[in-house]
Amino acid sequence: MPAFDDAARAVVDVDAAASASAAARHDRLTKPPGSLGRLEAAGARLCAIAGTCPPPVPEPAAVAVFAGDHGVLDEWVTPWPREVTAQMVANFCAGGAAVNVLARHAGASVTVVDVGVATELHVGEARGLERRNVRRGTGNLAVGPAMSAEEAARALDVGAEVAASLVAGGARCLLTGDMGIGNTTPSAALVATLTGRPAVEVTGRGTGIDDERLARKRAVVAAAVARVQGAAPLEVLASVGGLEIAALAGYVVGGAAARVPVVLDGVIACAAALVADALVPACGGYLFAGHRSSEPGASVALDHLGLEPLLDLDLRLGEGTGACLALPLLQAAAKVLAEMATFDSAGVSGREVG
Amino acid sequence: MPAFDDAARAVVDVDAAASASAAARHDRLTKPPGSLGRLEAAGARLCAIAGTCPPPVPEPAAVAVFAGDHGVLDEWVTPWPREVTAQMVANFCAGGAAVNVLARHAGASVTVVDVGVATELHVGEARGLERRNVRRGTGNLAVGPAMSAEEAARALDVGAEVAASLVAGGARCLLTGDMGIGNTTPSAALVATLTGRPAVEVTGRGTGIDDERLARKRAVVAAAVARVQGAAPLEVLASVGGLEIAALAGYVVGGAAARVPVVLDGVIACAAALVADALVPACGGYLFAGHRSSEPGASVALDHLGLEPLLDLDLRLGEGTGACLALPLLQAAAKVLAEMATFDSAGVSGREVG
Repeated sequence: MPAFDDAARAVVDVDAAASASAAARHDRLTKPPGSLGRLEAAGARLCAIAGTCPPPVPEPAAVAVFAGDHGVLDEWVTPWPREVTAQMVANFCAGGAAVNVLARHAGASVTVVDVGVATELHVGEARGLERRNVRRGTGNLAVGPAMSAEEAARALDVGAEVAASLVAGGARCLLTGDMGIGNTTPSAALVATLTGRPAVEVTGRGTGIDDERLARKRAVVAAAVARVQGAAPLEVLASVGGLEIAALAGYVVGGAAARVPVVLDGVIACAAALVADALVPACGGYLFAGHRSSEPGASVALDHLGLEPLLDLDLRLGEGTGACLALPLLQAAAKVLAEMATFDSAGVSGREVG
Repeated sequence: MPAFDDAARAVVDVDAAASASAAARHDRLTKPPGSLGRLEAAGARLCAIAGTCPPPVPEPAAVAVFAGDHGVLDEWVTPWPREVTAQMVANFCAGGAAVNVLARHAGASVTVVDVGVATELHVGEARGLERRNVRRGTGNLAVGPAMSAEEAARALDVGAEVAASLVAGGARCLLTGDMGIGNTTPSAALVATLTGRPAVEVTGRGTGIDDERLARKRAVVAAAVARVQGAAPLEVLASVGGLEIAALAGYVVGGAAARVPVVLDGVIACAAALVADALVPACGGYLFAGHRSSEPGASVALDHLGLEPLLDLDLRLGEGTGACLALPLLQAAAKVLAEMATFDSAGVSGREVG
């Protein structure tokens, strides 16, 4: 039985009763009701996921960085050469990238997964790379399907297996990470297709492109979206997605199956979450939006998923960096519920009634 | 020589050259230029404060929670009884309040300072309370000055001394905290006076009041603002401020004098920072806005100070909670500059030129 199908069947709805217990408990803690704002909403969601209040603190946490390449680079949608994907994988394995620094700071482990890198990886065996390459880069989605449905399914399995393996190893919170030069293009195509919004609205400058490239990118996305109109989610994923995006969708479902919180990073993760949500709707309750990426598709996807991001710092790096930065907020939300005194226990007067 | 005057004289402008070095270094790190968004701006400011790039990580950090009561409670501006200030001081000393939980999570110490509590404190001597009471609560600012200029000056000294003492004890980052039932009213009066904006625009619901109390509160603030029109900052502080707000202004200047970053919490801290900025303009460069409080005066004050908040979570608790939640972001900003690989060191290709 494939790992993804197993995981999909294992996802149960989050526990609304535990969320209600959190709301009641928040009102008994020594603070004005609601005064911790969206931290209280995050705490309630952690309770719903764990099925208990107070919730366990989401630690240790693990980031999985899924890496893949994109045939759509032939369309001149980014100024970065394809080789940078493999070079950055080596950088992740050596601990020098932003996600390494921010994961260390947040106390999270980093696992790097080659699910679709096209060029040669110069990484020693000892460096903790998971070699799960399904295909050496996607086909050019501007001229045909990015991959076959079978390849997409294998990438979904890789993601679900990595999630299960991290949780089996002790992780109690999964953070999404990604690396793939050009991957904001398939992400935009997925966001447009799965939310029904126009390509021009969800396609942005990625890590930084000029007006000419942006116009080209929007045309590529619009054509891809038109091609998959009305298709089933798995076919959409295969036709206009990416290998690391498919793996991330599997990872999201795997995390939900294991009943741990899954913290989304930027637009790539948001696109993957839309795929996961389309395939397994109950997994949406396990998601947190780490931040609001400056890429427009991210906000469109988050609205569709009903998620409000924890951070809004104009980040547009990916790799899992925004998820790592948001992790301490989630842990704080759990600790508020677990550790704060109540009005009764602390002998603090309530406010006047009426 | 009073502590505040000493500190005020010691504040020097932050180092623009170190900030420029940070910008140049950010562009050599293995990420697209600018892709870490406002984290990069925070890192550059840390460099400017420290006078070096990369900057030291701002740790250990210390929160000082200044507590004071307010005569303006006679005007029915809040549903909370005055005794809650002293009760919450006891809660801080026992470690059960939100700021205790969030400071522990962020690795920051908590120092509680009674600078103006009106009612009896039931706190054992061993609980780490600094007893620096200048006056047992302010006078009612709706009918006369909140305090004398001499009392305001003594409270400024308390804050500057606490800052100096925390830095002497090893703190490398100071977080502002406050407790004082009713203190959003004097804060609104200070924000309106020192920014020139109308009272109605800067006066909010504090921890949660109904429309009738809000109308009353706005009228009180507007009358107070009218009374101090054209007065010097110290006189404004004495006439419409609060003892804990004055101490916080001294604390901000003390932190700047010691050349450490000062992280502001909510609207009370923002009002204090406006006072500090009016008295010692160079201290503005040492400030970070931890978050955007949902109290409207906070945003007005931050705009005036030219600060963009790190978090925006609809917090309206005070105590230092928002500053504690923001601290890991500042530390992350420093570590990015200190620990990330460069394109050269990691052998990663840059993007095409042109």
